[in-house]
Amino acid sequence: MTVTLYELAGADPALRFSPYCWRTRLVLAHKGIDVEGLPWRFTEKARIAFSGGTRVPVLVDGERVVTDSWHIAEYLDEAYPDALVLPRDAAGRGHMLFINAWADGVLHGAIARCVLKDIHDLLAPEDQAYFRESRERAMGRSLEAVVSDRDTAGVTGVRAALAPVRAVLRRQMWLGGEAPDYADYLLLGSLQWARCVSRFALLAEDDPVAAWHHRGLALFGGLLENAPRA
Amino acid sequence: MTVTLYELAGADPALRFSPYCWRTRLVLAHKGIDVEGLPWRFTEKARIAFSGGTRVPVLVDGERVVTDSWHIAEYLDEAYPDALVLPRDAAGRGHMLFINAWADGVLHGAIARCVLKDIHDLLAPEDQAYFRESRERAMGRSLEAVVSDRDTAGVTGVRAALAPVRAVLRRQMWLGGEAPDYADYLLLGSLQWARCVSRFALLAEDDPVAAWHHRGLALFGGLLENAPRA
Repeated sequence: MTVTLYELAGADPALRFSPYCWRTRLVLAHKGIDVEGLPWRFTEKARIAFSGGTRVPVLVDGERVVTDSWHIAEYLDEAYPDALVLPRDAAGRGHMLFINAWADGVLHGAIARCVLKDIHDLLAPEDQAYFRESRERAMGRSLEAVVSDRDTAGVTGVRAALAPVRAVLRRQMWLGGEAPDYADYLLLGSLQWARCVSRFALLAEDDPVAAWHHRGLALFGGLLENAPRA
Repeated sequence: MTVTLYELAGADPALRFSPYCWRTRLVLAHKGIDVEGLPWRFTEKARIAFSGGTRVPVLVDGERVVTDSWHIAEYLDEAYPDALVLPRDAAGRGHMLFINAWADGVLHGAIARCVLKDIHDLLAPEDQAYFRESRERAMGRSLEAVVSDRDTAGVTGVRAALAPVRAVLRRQMWLGGEAPDYADYLLLGSLQWARCVSRFALLAEDDPVAAWHHRGLALFGGLLENAPRA
């Protein structure tokens, strides 16, 4: 089986950096599903209009089109139930959704404060104008101003935000226990976003999160480790 | 069966407000275990020295003494396995611990910014001096300065911090699914802390978290709703 995945790309089409697309990539790898990744740019809304949405990831599996990384994970667990990544019960599903929403809101906000300008710099020219205008409007200041204190407040904010992750990793190898599950994948996606767009070091080397990240980079034959970086 | 629980109290010994003690109270109620709650004050370290620690909750169950709300929940699930509150598997346990650590760090920090001065005001005189000195040293400013913008940045911070909770409650009644589990209890404990120490309104009435909170207040015959408030 091969599915098609529309993925956010930079000026270099090989540079794929969306945290949400990486989540889907990791779920597909977990299930052993082959994927053809198509590069997509912010300004190519028309190319994914068939999905009913304006954002990636967009997964095409035969006749089926699914958007949104969470819904894609749910779909893949239904369609390919051999190696589940999400809990089956409402309690476990709710807790996972909590971690998912925390990453989207808290963690991504903290990471963006450090790498937003780097993202701009790797985009294709038509995307750069869109990205700068939309992000500067949302944040109320220039991209340069957002990242100006990343060496101090920015990186401190990311490391502080990761405290709940650290609490779990003090007890076990993966958020999923003895093996990774979707909690690991979604968080690896967040760090892969930062890793692909920037050389800025978010984690201290002696952070338990860094040790976990090294384990994650090696998963699936180095899927994350070998991905092109800016 | 009756267990003994040392609980943080105000000048009024009936006023019990520690979020961590409320977590334990809710687990005990969930399991139908009778509890004798003993009021304890910050400056009474000697009274709980037998526990090996300096903080409450301290649970005494026959010969067994357990400290720390998370360890108490684990102990109670082991000793009274009829109505479990924690997931049994490492993945589910890890996700729950994540939510627990998030509440302790992120949410409690945001709530403290709003109610720290109210806590001070309800304490016994000897605790007031200890509380002011230790908290002002930790926060680098006076209690009055900490809460000075609670009507604006303070309350906005609490509501923003609750975004991951809101994401789950859009899909289900409780964080635990169709019935509350420890994720609900720990978060209800956090809000009960704020509710017992202050009349300051943290939640907007139309917030899905407020609707969930009302359901939580009614649990176990109104255990939370009927608790004394400052």
